[in-house]
Amino acid sequence: MRIATYQYQGRRQVGLVSADGQTVSPFQIEAPRARRGALSLIEAQAAGESRLPATGEAVPLSAIRLEAPLPMQRRNIFCVGRNYHAHAKELSGSVFKNSAAKVDSWPIVFTKVPECVIGPNDEVHLPGEAISAQIDYEAELAVVIGKPGRNITRASAMSHVYGYTIVNDVTARDVQMRHQQWDLGKSFDTFCPMGPWIVTADELDGTDTRVRCWVNGEARQDGQTTDLIFDIPTLIETCSRGITLNAGDVIATGTPAGVGMGLTPPQYLKSGDVVRIEIDGLGVLESRFV
Amino acid sequence: MRIATYQYQGRRQVGLVSADGQTVSPFQIEAPRARRGALSLIEAQAAGESRLPATGEAVPLSAIRLEAPLPMQRRNIFCVGRNYHAHAKELSGSVFKNSAAKVDSWPIVFTKVPECVIGPNDEVHLPGEAISAQIDYEAELAVVIGKPGRNITRASAMSHVYGYTIVNDVTARDVQMRHQQWDLGKSFDTFCPMGPWIVTADELDGTDTRVRCWVNGEARQDGQTTDLIFDIPTLIETCSRGITLNAGDVIATGTPAGVGMGLTPPQYLKSGDVVRIEIDGLGVLESRFV
Repeated sequence: MRIATYQYQGRRQVGLVSADGQTVSPFQIEAPRARRGALSLIEAQAAGESRLPATGEAVPLSAIRLEAPLPMQRRNIFCVGRNYHAHAKELSGSVFKNSAAKVDSWPIVFTKVPECVIGPNDEVHLPGEAISAQIDYEAELAVVIGKPGRNITRASAMSHVYGYTIVNDVTARDVQMRHQQWDLGKSFDTFCPMGPWIVTADELDGTDTRVRCWVNGEARQDGQTTDLIFDIPTLIETCSRGITLNAGDVIATGTPAGVGMGLTPPQYLKSGDVVRIEIDGLGVLESRFV
Repeated sequence: MRIATYQYQGRRQVGLVSADGQTVSPFQIEAPRARRGALSLIEAQAAGESRLPATGEAVPLSAIRLEAPLPMQRRNIFCVGRNYHAHAKELSGSVFKNSAAKVDSWPIVFTKVPECVIGPNDEVHLPGEAISAQIDYEAELAVVIGKPGRNITRASAMSHVYGYTIVNDVTARDVQMRHQQWDLGKSFDTFCPMGPWIVTADELDGTDTRVRCWVNGEARQDGQTTDLIFDIPTLIETCSRGITLNAGDVIATGTPAGVGMGLTPPQYLKSGDVVRIEIDGLGVLESRFV
């Protein structure tokens, strides 16, 4: 299933995207639930509702405006750093200083505030050069947790996955580095484009899919999630050690090589740039920076 | 004012603690608002409500059970690391490795998930030695944001402060260090005792108050917030650069010297230990570890 959150006729709805991708059928749920996007469905399922709500009349995708599938999360998004070998290498000496291209023994996990999430049709706002002149993109597969749990083992981890979506882990590199801990430089308003929808785990094998990114049409990133240093089960095990994961939590799995900071010379985003991310089996998330 | 969130007669209420500290008068608000604790009052005020709700009949403090003043926050708590000189020195070579006792140019900001917040009468659960054998305390003054804002200047920062509370930034040191980014080691379930209430900014000068901590009656920490490396206005300016701060956001300002990891040899918390934090003008937050 592809579950989308969107605006139609002046209000937020949640719906099922058709197999041919041409239409979306709204779930018949009350407005307060719909306002929480796909989260309300995921939480209801985690609470024991076995069936999805009934759907109403299909509407052409061209008639709606997609929003982030999870526009109102309950807490910060978990994000993983240095999780593709080639990316670790390209940033040795900068974000990953003192580390050369070593492989860590444990995943690096930081967060982004939920309020920085925007939809596939929203613009990312550059904060102005006085705040940061080093805005960078990071194309990432994001895991959406379905079944809550604590101290989840690698072996059972995949049963906790509801599905997947795409995020652009937009980063202010100068801010990320100067504060040592990364949360601030990752959490600027509008710095988490998410979408186009959630694809459920029965329809996509997130452990083996291709993650690509273009800036203004120029290919920049091209990775396969089989190349993750810490795979999805390990990330779920790691984030849930001592910490209860909730239905609707998101874990962004890290970005392949090819970020702007890793280029020679580095190339940061400027007003008018368009970053397009494509993940096989998920679709496209394209964001304009202004 | 001292604003408390508490259980009375089987439901959560929010109330005003009397000047003599003997009673609490419940605000006359509906149950869904009361369930969100003091956050519902802070948000209403930020939205333009100029008056507090009316209060009902006072109840003896002995008849209620205090909860965390902000039991359901909207996103992770902002926390500051290495913000007292003596604490930076005691952890050089461990948490703050490669840094000796240097003073940073920029604050270190990480987060704790909102679900780890517990009340003054709740127990902190040690996660078991297989998960972490290095559980430590950190006594901290926490700033509660009242007026939202982005790119807040130092000069205007104090006008955004609603009040203050106490948090114990409980930390799994081994987990904190091995993941490089600290969020995981700071976010274990029950790892953020908060309370006993919020004291509003008109009644407490958070920029000059004393923060003390005892473990099983033994004095461990004793700092004055005038000794913060980055003062409260600077922290608000820092956290709001590019990031909209919301009403009800919490910034924990860092801990004085004297944490368990800084002792020779280090002394970590074990089952049965009681950590008592006292901040002048705020009160006492005492937590049992089990």
